[in-house]
Amino acid sequence: MSLGPVVAAVPQSCGESLCVFGTGDMGRSLGQRLLQSGYSVVFGSRRPDSCVPVPRGAQVMSHAAAAQSARIIFICIHREHYGFLQTIAPQLKGKVLVDVSNNLEKDMFPEANASHLQRLVPEATVVKALNTLSAWALQNGPSDSNRQTFVCGDSAEAKQAVSEVCTRLGLLVLDRGSLGASRELEDFPLQLFPQWRLPLGIALGLTAAFFFYLLIRDVIYAYVVDGKDISFRIMVSLANKVFPIVSLVMLALCYLPGVMAALLQLHRGTKYRPFPDWLDRWMLCRKQMGLVALALASLHVLYTLIIPIRYYVRYRIAASTISQVLKNQTTEFSQTSAWRTDSYYSMGILGFGLFVLLGISSLPSVSNSLSWREFSFIQSKLGYLTLFLCTLHAYLYGWDKFLRPTSYKWYMAPGYLLSLVLPSVVLVLKLLLLLPCVDRSLTRIRRGWERGTTQDSSTHRLLI
Amino acid sequence: MSLGPVVAAVPQSCGESLCVFGTGDMGRSLGQRLLQSGYSVVFGSRRPDSCVPVPRGAQVMSHAAAAQSARIIFICIHREHYGFLQTIAPQLKGKVLVDVSNNLEKDMFPEANASHLQRLVPEATVVKALNTLSAWALQNGPSDSNRQTFVCGDSAEAKQAVSEVCTRLGLLVLDRGSLGASRELEDFPLQLFPQWRLPLGIALGLTAAFFFYLLIRDVIYAYVVDGKDISFRIMVSLANKVFPIVSLVMLALCYLPGVMAALLQLHRGTKYRPFPDWLDRWMLCRKQMGLVALALASLHVLYTLIIPIRYYVRYRIAASTISQVLKNQTTEFSQTSAWRTDSYYSMGILGFGLFVLLGISSLPSVSNSLSWREFSFIQSKLGYLTLFLCTLHAYLYGWDKFLRPTSYKWYMAPGYLLSLVLPSVVLVLKLLLLLPCVDRSLTRIRRGWERGTTQDSSTHRLLI
Amino acid sequence: MSLGPVVAAVPQSCGESLCVFGTGDMGRSLGQRLLQSGYSVVFGSRRPDSCVPVPRGAQVMSHAAAAQSARIIFICIHREHYGFLQTIAPQLKGKVLVDVSNNLEKDMFPEANASHLQRLVPEATVVKALNTLSAWALQNGPSDSNRQTFVCGDSAEAKQAVSEVCTRLGLLVLDRGSLGASRELEDFPLQLFPQWRLPLGIALGLTAAFFFYLLIRDVIYAYVVDGKDISFRIMVSLANKVFPIVSLVMLALCYLPGVMAALLQLHRGTKYRPFPDWLDRWMLCRKQMGLVALALASLHVLYTLIIPIRYYVRYRIAASTISQVLKNQTTEFSQTSAWRTDSYYSMGILGFGLFVLLGISSLPSVSNSLSWREFSFIQSKLGYLTLFLCTLHAYLYGWDKFLRPTSYKWYMAPGYLLSLVLPSVVLVLKLLLLLPCVDRSLTRIRRGWERGTTQDSSTHRLLI
Repeated sequence: MSLGPVVAAVPQSCGESLCVFGTGDMGRSLGQRLLQSGYSVVFGSRRPDSCVPVPRGAQVMSHAAAAQSARIIFICIHREHYGFLQTIAPQLKGKVLVDVSNNLEKDMFPEANASHLQRLVPEATVVKALNTLSAWALQNGPSDSNRQTFVCGDSAEAKQAVSEVCTRLGLLVLDRGSLGASRELEDFPLQLFPQWRLPLGIALGLTAAFFFYLLIRDVIYAYVVDGKDISFRIMVSLANKVFPIVSLVMLALCYLPGVMAALLQLHRGTKYRPFPDWLDRWMLCRKQMGLVALALASLHVLYTLIIPIRYYVRYRIAASTISQVLKNQTTEFSQTSAWRTDSYYSMGILGFGLFVLLGISSLPSVSNSLSWREFSFIQSKLGYLTLFLCTLHAYLYGWDKFLRPTSYKWYMAPGYLLSLVLPSVVLVLKLLLLLPCVDRSLTRIRRGWERGTTQDSSTHRLLI
Repeated sequence: MSLGPVVAAVPQSCGESLCVFGTGDMGRSLGQRLLQSGYSVVFGSRRPDSCVPVPRGAQVMSHAAAAQSARIIFICIHREHYGFLQTIAPQLKGKVLVDVSNNLEKDMFPEANASHLQRLVPEATVVKALNTLSAWALQNGPSDSNRQTFVCGDSAEAKQAVSEVCTRLGLLVLDRGSLGASRELEDFPLQLFPQWRLPLGIALGLTAAFFFYLLIRDVIYAYVVDGKDISFRIMVSLANKVFPIVSLVMLALCYLPGVMAALLQLHRGTKYRPFPDWLDRWMLCRKQMGLVALALASLHVLYTLIIPIRYYVRYRIAASTISQVLKNQTTEFSQTSAWRTDSYYSMGILGFGLFVLLGISSLPSVSNSLSWREFSFIQSKLGYLTLFLCTLHAYLYGWDKFLRPTSYKWYMAPGYLLSLVLPSVVLVLKLLLLLPCVDRSLTRIRRGWERGTTQDSSTHRLLI
Repeated sequence: MSLGPVVAAVPQSCGESLCVFGTGDMGRSLGQRLLQSGYSVVFGSRRPDSCVPVPRGAQVMSHAAAAQSARIIFICIHREHYGFLQTIAPQLKGKVLVDVSNNLEKDMFPEANASHLQRLVPEATVVKALNTLSAWALQNGPSDSNRQTFVCGDSAEAKQAVSEVCTRLGLLVLDRGSLGASRELEDFPLQLFPQWRLPLGIALGLTAAFFFYLLIRDVIYAYVVDGKDISFRIMVSLANKVFPIVSLVMLALCYLPGVMAALLQLHRGTKYRPFPDWLDRWMLCRKQMGLVALALASLHVLYTLIIPIRYYVRYRIAASTISQVLKNQTTEFSQTSAWRTDSYYSMGILGFGLFVLLGISSLPSVSNSLSWREFSFIQSKLGYLTLFLCTLHAYLYGWDKFLRPTSYKWYMAPGYLLSLVLPSVVLVLKLLLLLPCVDRSLTRIRRGWERGTTQDSSTHRLLI
């Protein structure tokens, strides 16, 4: 629950003295915030007399003297300079050292900074904290995006003491366990959407591929063969073909690894052998893949809905009406066309509605509030229904176009036909897996049964 | 804050030995994860020599021997077999027993499994944990949807020890209090949207009812009386009547119980008498009811926006234009129609916009960040405004249609008219409750005043 | 993770006795809940014999007697009456006093109620809790919107005891640190969107200003000069000009303060001097400003998408088609218009898509799961891209209209032209800041470098 950045505005002095080693940016920003929150701050510096200006109200001493003035010492110096701390080890004995450091890249050092620090000064207690916050948050007080800080360390008491300081700075403290977790915490600020890279890469690749395919098939063909310049269609018509195609393919890619994993388990007759690495990685980014597909589907919806206000469409409709009047012939109303197009829109809307529901259920706060059974009901049952409706939408859109020879310009099939391959394969495989005999085997395997072991599943479960 | 499934990739040994009783699926999956996270694992088995294969790296011993090798013992056996634990009670003395069990249905046993276990082995300390995770999460490491685990138990120290193991497995641990909460935790994995059943049931019932009503009134009437086949309208036109009608009715059903509760309190003259059970249950699913209504309203929006790209609509517009040309008569522009339809769309858009805002504010993470005053401002004030705008939208849509006899085919009123009954009643009742004299009484009652008690509200509040 | 309001339904007695001082609404509601959760409850009252009815099952005693019956005492009386507690100080010694009070307005008293209570009864331990819950939650058990309660206090042990009671009431307890945080907790229930006031005020002001500007320029001008009544356009056409204009201006206002802060830092040559107060406040409400802009942009999208189903638009299109037929002249298809309008829609859709992405990433649960680097990538890089696309959308919409003298009715420029001023300025300034030389200076300053200090940045960082 966000209580707003209130604490900073209530600088009641609490008298407690805290020590900060290092007068660089981090040290000064942190010192300033500590002062604002009512603490006394003592900076430890190599040259206490000729040091850069520290925030007003803070004292500067030598490292050894500063260390003795406080119980908690924030180590705001670079890992490369941790070495000198060994020289004042006696003064650090029993102190709580807060490691706030980050590295410039992952795996720079074999050991986490905090573990390294603990090894250097074994008689102090090291707590990792505050490193996931931006400098902005440390200087100006926490805002919405960074009210949380992680704390880890081996001493519950030391963690508690550091947590209290953090709470006073207006932060929400989350305990992440022992000091062994500090590598994870040190890597966290460096990450830039690691799980989104593969899905975004696939989406970009598919988008580019289908864009050029359709550019050649639609625009360039019309220019070369018919001598017509319809390049303006790139902006909306072409985009509105590429986006739904890529979206449908990516939605199928979300469900393909699950089907493949099931087939693999059936083939192997056990669930205890690990999947190949690529399959594991694929399965771990299904959520991100689905959300990218949802984003593209949303663009498709918007691109579709603006069709009737486009200049080109209005021009064509007026031209067609005028030509009907002039030729004095009216086209016949086709019940089939009415049924087909309305069904096609309806399937699209229902599929998109379910897709949005899947997206909402993957918001962290929503998925956290679901039991595992509920989550798998939505993501699996409703997910396949979504895939089915969207595939049906594409089939109804295409209808009998794939039969007409004119659809194959320069032997290139219409885009929608290509987009249907993968979803159809996934749906057929899923149907096979749902056949009672196959489903029964799979369920047994997923409950721990193994082909080739002598015990059957019933004794197995009774084993204690 | 999700730190991604990192821990699994860093199998630093921590040396600590943990014990797992049971070599079934749960025991093996858990054992494998523990081994991956750097623990030594000892399985306890009835037949340590002829047991099913355990994960590589784990030892298998007899239960008694295994129990002595570790401080924490994970009980991965079925409740039915807990009995034998009494026979090794001496070896379990002082150990932490982690009950990870679930049942196949609610209320199978009079007592929670964990409480039962504690009663059987009173000299051990039982902690309930890990039961809300899927087998997948235990085997493959936590992913987004299941990083959380609940822990409950009577010993803070034992909970802490178990929490540390869970944290090391990459889970976020939430303490749910004493062992008495274990029944709640054991029921959690079994639940499948318990609070959504009533709202979804109502939505389905209303949808079916209005669908058949409108099918008869629109499609079948046209077929029987006019001999026209307009069955294609089922797909879009009919759906786009049923969805908004059901949505509006369900939105009214969200606000009806609050109004009824207020009237009941006014009638009784006290707030301390509990409401009837059905009213309580109704009030508890208002949020879900509103979200179902929002989903239907969203479908209504999409169905409305595709109207101009429908084949049928384009055909009719062209036909009408052509017939105007041929008859050489143009229709007159009607200021009233322009005002009415534009207002009708505008109210719909604003109502829908507010409705989406209500939906966003009921996302767990958003509603958690609101103070109670803020939440009730949105859900009550803005909620009634939404209901008002949507009702106005429906009134403007209908306009004077209800006066025309042709609207009553086979004596059946137009659908929109039926949908307006409930919202109108709710809005009128709410207006009555807002009358100063009524509002004053209600406020007094809600502050604790009771009719018939001798003290008036002012002394009452001073009572200490 | 919401486990549903289950606890209330399982009234297992736990035997522990709790004391409630005060038989007003708060005391009675709380007492009832405690009884339902299985506690024994003793009310302390001034006149135990002639007191108002307490919930069935509770006892009533004198304050002194009640205090001795329990370890935890809930103080449900108004702060004004805390005084009498001094008289029973001996009985309160060593007890845990839970302050549940709230005030009617902010800063009513110089000291938080809980701190005041602690000062009055120094030998008891005061814990602040439960005050952020609504009376409804206390009486009927927690529902979705208020399952959380904050606890603060100086004694970890006392907080733990109170937390256990809260957990048993079905609440999620969040520890907010020492008793010094109680002022914050007491202000929390009073707040009504404090951070939204400025953005909403700006939005309202801008909306009103542009509404009247466009009303005069479009509707009143047409009435006065051309004698045409087009007042019906207020409902949709005018709204659909005002909303996008205000949205674009507010989006620019989100990014203006960041640019200004950067310029100020460049000018001052240091980041250590605080920003002016107005700039700080502006920066703190950027998120809210952006979300208001997003809401207006969403309305703009809906208002745009209903254009083709408007009566007025259909009438005009039919009229234009008919007049083309009658005059027997068809308009020429313009490639430029096709390109321009399609690009204009495409930019709008992509800009809106990114805008929605920014909105989603500012949901609390999403932004909490992002590292600071990820969050700033989205909000800064993607944010500027959004601003750029939306500005381009407006430029393409306007195209060469601003060159035509007829666009300046009564010397009033078209609305879109006014909306472009601020975004253009922000984008140009941002471009300047991205020039390599400027960017380098700024980066140095943000890393802690200060102009005029003797050490250069490299030695600075080495200082320890």
